[in-house]
Amino acid sequence: MSKAVNIGVIGAGRIGKIHAENLAYLIPGAKLVAIADANLSPAIEAWAKGLGVKTVTKDPKVLFADKDIEAIIICSSTDTHADFVVQAAQAGKHIFCEKPVDTTVAKVRAALAAADKAKVKLQVGFNRRFDHNFRRVRELVLSGAVGDPQIIKITSRDPAPPPVSYVAVSGGIFLDMMIHDLDMARYQAGSEVVEVYAQGSVLVDEGIGKAGDVDTAIVTLKFKNGALAVIDNSRKAVYGYDQRLEVFGSKGSAAAENDTPSTVRLSTEAGVTGDKPLYFFLERYKEAFIAEMREFVAAVAEDKPVPVTGEDGLQDLLVALACKKSLVEGRAVKLSEIPLV
Amino acid sequence: MSKAVNIGVIGAGRIGKIHAENLAYLIPGAKLVAIADANLSPAIEAWAKGLGVKTVTKDPKVLFADKDIEAIIICSSTDTHADFVVQAAQAGKHIFCEKPVDTTVAKVRAALAAADKAKVKLQVGFNRRFDHNFRRVRELVLSGAVGDPQIIKITSRDPAPPPVSYVAVSGGIFLDMMIHDLDMARYQAGSEVVEVYAQGSVLVDEGIGKAGDVDTAIVTLKFKNGALAVIDNSRKAVYGYDQRLEVFGSKGSAAAENDTPSTVRLSTEAGVTGDKPLYFFLERYKEAFIAEMREFVAAVAEDKPVPVTGEDGLQDLLVALACKKSLVEGRAVKLSEIPLV
Amino acid sequence: MSKAVNIGVIGAGRIGKIHAENLAYLIPGAKLVAIADANLSPAIEAWAKGLGVKTVTKDPKVLFADKDIEAIIICSSTDTHADFVVQAAQAGKHIFCEKPVDTTVAKVRAALAAADKAKVKLQVGFNRRFDHNFRRVRELVLSGAVGDPQIIKITSRDPAPPPVSYVAVSGGIFLDMMIHDLDMARYQAGSEVVEVYAQGSVLVDEGIGKAGDVDTAIVTLKFKNGALAVIDNSRKAVYGYDQRLEVFGSKGSAAAENDTPSTVRLSTEAGVTGDKPLYFFLERYKEAFIAEMREFVAAVAEDKPVPVTGEDGLQDLLVALACKKSLVEGRAVKLSEIPLV
Amino acid sequence: MSKAVNIGVIGAGRIGKIHAENLAYLIPGAKLVAIADANLSPAIEAWAKGLGVKTVTKDPKVLFADKDIEAIIICSSTDTHADFVVQAAQAGKHIFCEKPVDTTVAKVRAALAAADKAKVKLQVGFNRRFDHNFRRVRELVLSGAVGDPQIIKITSRDPAPPPVSYVAVSGGIFLDMMIHDLDMARYQAGSEVVEVYAQGSVLVDEGIGKAGDVDTAIVTLKFKNGALAVIDNSRKAVYGYDQRLEVFGSKGSAAAENDTPSTVRLSTEAGVTGDKPLYFFLERYKEAFIAEMREFVAAVAEDKPVPVTGEDGLQDLLVALACKKSLVEGRAVKLSEIPLV
Repeated sequence: MSKAVNIGVIGAGRIGKIHAENLAYLIPGAKLVAIADANLSPAIEAWAKGLGVKTVTKDPKVLFADKDIEAIIICSSTDTHADFVVQAAQAGKHIFCEKPVDTTVAKVRAALAAADKAKVKLQVGFNRRFDHNFRRVRELVLSGAVGDPQIIKITSRDPAPPPVSYVAVSGGIFLDMMIHDLDMARYQAGSEVVEVYAQGSVLVDEGIGKAGDVDTAIVTLKFKNGALAVIDNSRKAVYGYDQRLEVFGSKGSAAAENDTPSTVRLSTEAGVTGDKPLYFFLERYKEAFIAEMREFVAAVAEDKPVPVTGEDGLQDLLVALACKKSLVEGRAVKLSEIPLV
Repeated sequence: MSKAVNIGVIGAGRIGKIHAENLAYLIPGAKLVAIADANLSPAIEAWAKGLGVKTVTKDPKVLFADKDIEAIIICSSTDTHADFVVQAAQAGKHIFCEKPVDTTVAKVRAALAAADKAKVKLQVGFNRRFDHNFRRVRELVLSGAVGDPQIIKITSRDPAPPPVSYVAVSGGIFLDMMIHDLDMARYQAGSEVVEVYAQGSVLVDEGIGKAGDVDTAIVTLKFKNGALAVIDNSRKAVYGYDQRLEVFGSKGSAAAENDTPSTVRLSTEAGVTGDKPLYFFLERYKEAFIAEMREFVAAVAEDKPVPVTGEDGLQDLLVALACKKSLVEGRAVKLSEIPLV
Repeated sequence: MSKAVNIGVIGAGRIGKIHAENLAYLIPGAKLVAIADANLSPAIEAWAKGLGVKTVTKDPKVLFADKDIEAIIICSSTDTHADFVVQAAQAGKHIFCEKPVDTTVAKVRAALAAADKAKVKLQVGFNRRFDHNFRRVRELVLSGAVGDPQIIKITSRDPAPPPVSYVAVSGGIFLDMMIHDLDMARYQAGSEVVEVYAQGSVLVDEGIGKAGDVDTAIVTLKFKNGALAVIDNSRKAVYGYDQRLEVFGSKGSAAAENDTPSTVRLSTEAGVTGDKPLYFFLERYKEAFIAEMREFVAAVAEDKPVPVTGEDGLQDLLVALACKKSLVEGRAVKLSEIPLV
Repeated sequence: MSKAVNIGVIGAGRIGKIHAENLAYLIPGAKLVAIADANLSPAIEAWAKGLGVKTVTKDPKVLFADKDIEAIIICSSTDTHADFVVQAAQAGKHIFCEKPVDTTVAKVRAALAAADKAKVKLQVGFNRRFDHNFRRVRELVLSGAVGDPQIIKITSRDPAPPPVSYVAVSGGIFLDMMIHDLDMARYQAGSEVVEVYAQGSVLVDEGIGKAGDVDTAIVTLKFKNGALAVIDNSRKAVYGYDQRLEVFGSKGSAAAENDTPSTVRLSTEAGVTGDKPLYFFLERYKEAFIAEMREFVAAVAEDKPVPVTGEDGLQDLLVALACKKSLVEGRAVKLSEIPLV
């Protein structure tokens, strides 16, 4: 293998830490050389040192200015993503940006334009595309074993709702939570959404309703190629993170069940009991986080296209905004109704 | 046990034969005494004789006039159902009527009114409520194990589409096929539908499209109690009859998988392969057909309420008509928009 | 179809009743015309009358003497089986005899000789060969999908032990319980046993130990074709009747899991729970009891070989006796060590 | 956390590399400082350098002499294990030794005595005890959920046989392959073996037979606490590494199925197909290799007992030797028959 790709990470929160540790230990072609965090603490400094990172700073500009750094991983708060994409692009760095790039179409388009102009790679953090189960479904679809996709079903439920305070600023269930599922539906369909219809209820936490959001939602999608999709979201599945997928087509169906900590089943007088699903995204998508970063690093090192593009991020946002509009207006909404500015 | 209930069956087609044989052999409290079929043939006569049936006739009036007959099973063609319900009711017979009672609201209401006036029992043939799997789900919901139902998901796909000629007169996918699933959703929700949204495509057979119907449909339902439901239908699942159900609630989820001919799995170099689902409704709902009849006979013998009422039949029809309207008009439709005449 | 086969049943205990009812209701080519039971009671008479049986008697000789009866089903107590086989054979009746024919080699051979001499069919009631799961495994083996059988594994556990009083006269776990599994192993191997080794413990009920038997046993078998088999038996599986089978061969493995009342899984904070296996043999082998009788009747009506022969019954007995000897002597026992008298 | 444990690895073959990489990257409390390999090559040197290892040598004595090294991981060829254990012990190093310690009782006992005398920790590499599935079964047994263990069943089949040349020097199927399963049975039983019976056949590769070994074996074990166990081994399961376990007891059964690359099932006209098991031990026990090393390092760092002792290694060897004797002599063999010298 050629020289390792030098990488800087912006944001050392939960997801930033995961990416940094994966880069430090588990991705041979990458070298983690810098970490920037606006809220730099002694704990973060110690952790970064433990990873063998040279530069630890509060100021992301230090990373943009560092000639040795070839790629930037943006894991800071959502409202900073688009600006950092622009700055990184202008500095000629390749970019991996956590989802969403932004919650407004205008800022996402500006970020994409900057990356485009600078001819740098921009990958968006839709990690579920790298999940072993969902990827296997996609392989089966691409192999032709399923035939033409006709119905895509996604079950996506979190084990517990976030704090109401978070819901209030998150952009709501469609932009914050379902956007992953909308991306998955597009990925599996291999086609673009033309129309959506969203139904929602407040069934988990009244506080979420007071914050102007729903906590339970079902969305149906219609794709350009005629395929239909349905996604159901709940902010609270008491049995854990429920992440299932089915693609049904003219030749059959490929369906992914949940992962579990073990395969063990206990049979007693009370019944036959198995494990609950892995608890949440850190457990379920542990390998997917590694895989997406490995592919990003490979794309940079070998100058290949990234597997999830900025355009994907934009399309997912448009669909999520259409869902939001559909819920508010109580009718089906065409994608073409969402303004591109 | 008290004296057996004397029963006459009208219509000796596929479903009439099943009910007649079940009554003759498998339901101890019933005595099959008469069969009427408009297209009486020597083959039907021989078959009826083999069952030990006394009266075999072309004319259903013979059954209505027979004082010994306490209950009538209506399995004739759909367009005759409502009239026979009225005539049976006027003759004071208890009635089991195959679904649907009729495809128009007015005739269904007339039939219900006649049964009501005559104070006879009227059960409608929504056999899936008696399926061991779906009934088990309902038991778990009623036990409180699932908590308040929030999301109901029904997968319902046929192994092969009916002839286009049938589709043309069937009332379409919602009245002919999905009505079973709409009834199931109401049964599991324990609440009434207030709004529906239907999406459909022609993906299986262009002839179905030319006949003015769709062959692939996804419907979302909103219930009075806030629960949401989603049903997906396809006229063609190449792997067989796909009949699955999940009720997700505040305390968990109860999910029913398909039944298979065996539990055997073959592991080879090619993978680990198990059986396809039971092929179609005759196989899958074999026991359910027996159970619904057993409960009807018990309701008559012990003067108990029937488990599926005429009112259920009416509500299911209203929801199906709302789906049809939603698909045509491309918008969510409230149940209250469907006229009761 | 030709004329029905007239059949008489001897013994109206639990298994006799099942066969009689199946013959009366579920096997078109059979006509149940007579029932004999040494302990005839008014309850049995009423039940037999309800089935439409003409002759109900205490004396099996009445059945042997009846010229209209073509076949006899022997369901009386084990110690009477062999004698009734001889008498039925001498009267020229075809015979279905519940397992075991006898617990001594001499009497079994005498019975077989009588049937042979009279040229009547003799089928032994190893019902499990007709189970949908185990039969499917056999089909896969015969199809070549599994390759040459190398290892056969049978799990066979009862939900609860019989009374100690029964154990004392049953011939012990190998002759009473495991004989079914020994027959299954022979059926799946398609070869004869040459050597056995039996291990046993008293882990369920000390009373069984005092009665001279074990309640937990593992037996390994070696077949003429080189295949190995292992069977584990327990008199008490608290979660229900555990009846599983695997045939492993040069090209793969075919494995049958338990049947369950439903496919429903409940997911809650406590885990993901499914049904226990069907409770006991009446539930699990309900369809197998019908199928074995259907095949017996067809063998008689169409003069075809029976699917389980008297020779099978003899071989199974020899293997069971070898197991017993192995347990007592603490060593492997060759089949050739078991005397044929 | 306290200071990292300095560790040297002897042997950089397949398993040595895995342990070294795990120590370098995935076990926070460990520091890999030295690697010795008798066949040191430039490739190994480059690889060791990449891991940041200070000392790379042909001579294990360099490691024993290094005062900074606290623990030694022995991954060299089996015939060197016992000697290196003695030397490491004499040098005061804690020891992790790959299985088996040796194939003779005398050398194993000498190694254990040396570790004992030097008061150093000695852990043997029975990695399967750390497998998430088998550990979960053990937890359920220890929790009391299964009751008293009565029957332990282990299925253990390799995807492909090793070269016949390897079989010839491996000690045979019991010492080389089944020893893992014998250890697992002892681990799950929580009791010691008192008697074994082994059956074997040559069904996979005649060359193995010519080398004096069998390739297919079934062993039954009797434990001091009355529990029975059965293990089946095959050198070739065409569908992949088959590693299953069941512990059946007075209150129920805990059973572990295979792990698979994904949970995806494909339903087509041909059937419903899922993934084969993970291919072989590197895939299946990837996490177990990490876990066993993590626990060894923690045992050293915190001066706790090791989870798999030298005594375990000795007992497993005794049981394997008893199996070998049983197969040769065609009879059950008591553990007490195996000489301790």
